[in-house]
Amino acid sequence: MKNSIRKSRVVIEGVYPEIDRGKFPIKRVVGENVDVKAVVYADAHDEVNALVLYRQKSEKHWRELPMLKGIRDQWSASFRIEEQEDYYYTICGWIDEFMTWQRKLSKLWAAGHDVRLELIIGAQLLEAAAKNDSASNTKWLKKWVEDFKNEGNLFSNVYIALSDVLSDQMRKYGKRKSIATYSEELKVTVDRTKALFSTWYEVFPRSLGQKDGAHGTFKDCERILPEIADMGFDVLYFPPIHPIGSSKRKGKNNSALADKNDPGSPWAIGSQKGGHKSIHPQLGTLSDLKRLIAKAKTYGIEVALDIAFQCSPDHPYVKIHPEWFKRRPDKSIQYAENPPKKYEDIYPINFDTDDYENLTKELKSIFVYWIKQGIHIFRVDNPHTKPFAFWDWVIDQIRKEYPNVLFLAEAFTRPHVMQRLAKGGFQQSYTYFTWRMSLWDFSQYMNELTQTEMREYFRPNFWPNTPDILPVHLQNGGRPAFMQRVVLAATLSSNYGIYGPAFELCDAQALQGKEEYINSEKYEIKKWNRDAAWSLKDFIAKINMIRRENPALQTTWNFKFCPTNNENIFCFLKATRDRSNSILVVVNLDPFNKHAGSVCVPVEELGIGYHRHYSVHDLLTNDKYAWYRGWNYVELDPHSCPAHILRISGDEQV
Amino acid sequence: MKNSIRKSRVVIEGVYPEIDRGKFPIKRVVGENVDVKAVVYADAHDEVNALVLYRQKSEKHWRELPMLKGIRDQWSASFRIEEQEDYYYTICGWIDEFMTWQRKLSKLWAAGHDVRLELIIGAQLLEAAAKNDSASNTKWLKKWVEDFKNEGNLFSNVYIALSDVLSDQMRKYGKRKSIATYSEELKVTVDRTKALFSTWYEVFPRSLGQKDGAHGTFKDCERILPEIADMGFDVLYFPPIHPIGSSKRKGKNNSALADKNDPGSPWAIGSQKGGHKSIHPQLGTLSDLKRLIAKAKTYGIEVALDIAFQCSPDHPYVKIHPEWFKRRPDKSIQYAENPPKKYEDIYPINFDTDDYENLTKELKSIFVYWIKQGIHIFRVDNPHTKPFAFWDWVIDQIRKEYPNVLFLAEAFTRPHVMQRLAKGGFQQSYTYFTWRMSLWDFSQYMNELTQTEMREYFRPNFWPNTPDILPVHLQNGGRPAFMQRVVLAATLSSNYGIYGPAFELCDAQALQGKEEYINSEKYEIKKWNRDAAWSLKDFIAKINMIRRENPALQTTWNFKFCPTNNENIFCFLKATRDRSNSILVVVNLDPFNKHAGSVCVPVEELGIGYHRHYSVHDLLTNDKYAWYRGWNYVELDPHSCPAHILRISGDEQV
Repeated sequence: MKNSIRKSRVVIEGVYPEIDRGKFPIKRVVGENVDVKAVVYADAHDEVNALVLYRQKSEKHWRELPMLKGIRDQWSASFRIEEQEDYYYTICGWIDEFMTWQRKLSKLWAAGHDVRLELIIGAQLLEAAAKNDSASNTKWLKKWVEDFKNEGNLFSNVYIALSDVLSDQMRKYGKRKSIATYSEELKVTVDRTKALFSTWYEVFPRSLGQKDGAHGTFKDCERILPEIADMGFDVLYFPPIHPIGSSKRKGKNNSALADKNDPGSPWAIGSQKGGHKSIHPQLGTLSDLKRLIAKAKTYGIEVALDIAFQCSPDHPYVKIHPEWFKRRPDKSIQYAENPPKKYEDIYPINFDTDDYENLTKELKSIFVYWIKQGIHIFRVDNPHTKPFAFWDWVIDQIRKEYPNVLFLAEAFTRPHVMQRLAKGGFQQSYTYFTWRMSLWDFSQYMNELTQTEMREYFRPNFWPNTPDILPVHLQNGGRPAFMQRVVLAATLSSNYGIYGPAFELCDAQALQGKEEYINSEKYEIKKWNRDAAWSLKDFIAKINMIRRENPALQTTWNFKFCPTNNENIFCFLKATRDRSNSILVVVNLDPFNKHAGSVCVPVEELGIGYHRHYSVHDLLTNDKYAWYRGWNYVELDPHSCPAHILRISGDEQV
Repeated sequence: MKNSIRKSRVVIEGVYPEIDRGKFPIKRVVGENVDVKAVVYADAHDEVNALVLYRQKSEKHWRELPMLKGIRDQWSASFRIEEQEDYYYTICGWIDEFMTWQRKLSKLWAAGHDVRLELIIGAQLLEAAAKNDSASNTKWLKKWVEDFKNEGNLFSNVYIALSDVLSDQMRKYGKRKSIATYSEELKVTVDRTKALFSTWYEVFPRSLGQKDGAHGTFKDCERILPEIADMGFDVLYFPPIHPIGSSKRKGKNNSALADKNDPGSPWAIGSQKGGHKSIHPQLGTLSDLKRLIAKAKTYGIEVALDIAFQCSPDHPYVKIHPEWFKRRPDKSIQYAENPPKKYEDIYPINFDTDDYENLTKELKSIFVYWIKQGIHIFRVDNPHTKPFAFWDWVIDQIRKEYPNVLFLAEAFTRPHVMQRLAKGGFQQSYTYFTWRMSLWDFSQYMNELTQTEMREYFRPNFWPNTPDILPVHLQNGGRPAFMQRVVLAATLSSNYGIYGPAFELCDAQALQGKEEYINSEKYEIKKWNRDAAWSLKDFIAKINMIRRENPALQTTWNFKFCPTNNENIFCFLKATRDRSNSILVVVNLDPFNKHAGSVCVPVEELGIGYHRHYSVHDLLTNDKYAWYRGWNYVELDPHSCPAHILRISGDEQV
């Protein structure tokens, strides 16, 4: 340790947000804020001052944002993301001699001491600042320098010395002593708005055929676009659309032997018709897909593809790149398995291959191929079974060239693994929402997602069901359970999706003792009665409209748990930063019984006067209620509607 | 980002302990453990394994310590500090192919699948390991390789394959795939035991004169050594012993005008007789001091000096190094102040001087000078008013040459500043204990000190009083309050000290409305009646003996709060790691009234059977009680003794 280099006396530590020492960026969309905190202090009793320095990637110079001092040497400041470009931020602190001097002067003056010498010291500080000031204010500083030296004006000098006007000038032009800059420049990756606010509809195109048993096509998809748009979805997501292998093809209900008419699982990718860059012939052609993409766009809908990096035994890669697969001692290729379960229709890709570089280049080219066809959203299947370093690299590469492309990580696995994928670049992530049921569950999990560091990089996408998962509460709760789950998904998280039409038709038939659908669409073509009377189509349409019309529901980070006096009643508030839009959601979590109780509205935070009534407007039923103070009565019958979505509007004098 | 370099699939994060990204070391003494935790995981479903790598500074190679896997990918391991030398540690993780294989084999076997091919794969893993194994075990591995290939031995092969014997061999010799090593090598600074366990007695030597008004000397100190040793102290600490300035000397009770007989404050350092390397002539000579140091040693007592880097106007530095002091516009030197208070007898040193390098070299040489005279413990006055970088440097320099030297930071200031000084090297720190009074206070503060990251680098030293601070509860609570405070200081913290004889004589006279002593010893020579009947000498002696005899009280980190049903009764447990010594302390926090109630003993943690009585032995009174299960009755009258210090011994069947 050398002593000859003078170190700054200022310490900057406890910087937030900072993910894994700044190894990973935080994520934002345009319009969001970055709330920066740090602990900044120095030795001795000198006043310290601090700034957030931030800039867009394309800017050369830092912008300076004053930080505000709180208790225990904690400083904070907030800046808004204005453009879809990566940002950088760091922190700078220094000894503020002028503030130190002001504080001393004020104490001495209050104690009746002689401050003439102090004013001379102040004049010296002003003189130094005047040199820094390139602007017109120099003359004022210079004038005050002269004044301070004139002992006759003692009262007015002290008045000016302690004034806000002078404080402001000196904050800008005062000499900064012992400047410290934080060791890291921290990054914000800025995505397009859809990364934060999106509404997904997953559908198997092959089940959309018009005639009984007919294989659905992209043209059939075009036909149902108006219906999907009416329901208010803006992402239409398809399971893999590639040719399906025939070797070891699975039959209905995942049986090991397929009938000759069984279509196979779309996740058994590749046949002699092609692999990940080809389209399953029965779905149509590339130009059909492109027409669908274009037509969807006119409805405000984006088509998203499922990318699953795995191969059927018939995939061209198996012949062309045998080195990309793992072999067993008998020379057979190792199929996928979750012992003792075997997935013999699927070969995993072996990322341990010596040909890693070519392999990953090829996989990247799959994304690029579909991007060029007009796809800008990918749902990535099981990303946690591929190396993190691969995702870090491929998402980074693609973001550079195609900054609008979004990746959703379908990783249902351990928390740290899911977090690591999000840190590495995935713009959205599947979550445990699917299995969360009780009030305790929701308050815990929402706090984990929104009140911890995860909020900075992990954007949840809530799914009540998927083709793989029909959770127990949907199996047993009937139509009210489906209503509850879609309200919860759509209001808790600004990104959510359903797997339809199974969802809106309340398909609840599961394999005995499992969370899997009977006659799963993964292995057969289904015929859905999309116009059934019990369909939740209209209910979902209303919820999605409420989401579009209420900015408070277009972010997940503003979740605020509200206490209730009945554990079946879950209540939370979502309000915009400026409080111009406040939505209170109340859900009866019991799909069988009516429940009543009181919920507590944080009126102070909403700026509602203590002696004022305010109006709550149920956007689902159009009912209006006059509420008063914190605790208010609710009553929810799941058989009519298990939830209130209440817009809180203004306050009215009693 | 380049894709061509293969990155490890293993992630190591959330490493603990790690202070500010490893910028600062953790602290230990010989015999303490380092409990290391980390989150270690990889993509996919392969089994991961992890080790702590650690070594002493003088060792070239890492020692390997297997980590244990807990929930949520958390791993932990613990190593013991065996020598007084700095240690380093880091973490290594890898994909454990053998464990992965074992898990798969076990599942396939349980499900009745054909595992013959799996055993061949296992044989390949063993074969690779046999190449790694330089030891005699190779032959076993090779034998098993042959066995595994023999399909006839299926049952015994599976039995061996899943056996612990083979697991152990393969943990050692199995090929480690995709090894990741944590980015930081983290440091442990290891101090001598006294850094963790020390008992301080602060005294003004000048008040130890035998005749009325006579200035005490080092010889007088020698005389009272037996008394201090009887009381059980092992550090005898003196306020500054240097020549005291006469310019602007303060009189009694800090008055601005001194009588000609006033001795001045020992913190107004320096006169024509010398500065920080000189001894105040009335105390004696350097050889007197050295004899005292030697004599103290025979009593097991170390002499500690107060080092205060500040000068009286008469200090030689003021003339020789005028550039080390700050000047005001009228050319006068800036005296110390805490506006509107002025300390005109003291000039602070200006670390902003252009001559920083010479200044700091000189200050370092002051420590070195006293070390050479035999002083190995320094209490540093107001270190927070000097730059952190200076302390980082000077303590590091001195540790290298004199690893036994200890520094105690007397910084009563904001939490982050106190923490930063400890991080920078101070082996012990003053704390807020002095002002903590209620059960809530203690449970909060002890948790902060012992259950947060602070435990890794901040060693508290608890002081019930100091020459500067006579806290309100001692002013009002009478003798019982002094008894409470010394029990609390001595049992909560393994490092504690008192300022005597003011403490044991229960001096409670404060300046009106202040926390300062009337007729403070800082400004005058006091005559103490050290043999007064009300002296707590014997009580303190007993407490210090209990500390010496009970290892549970020789660390601070084992504090465990125990619930009580009376908020006046504070109870906590301290037990050694091996539970061989368990001390339960119960203190009545009210110095005026008797209180009774129940305290809850964590019997499960102590390994006391649920249906067994156990004996608690009050080491203060020698009373013994038979207790049963968790909640037990206590009753404490502050006027006899406000505390129990109970040794819990074994358990007896009912």
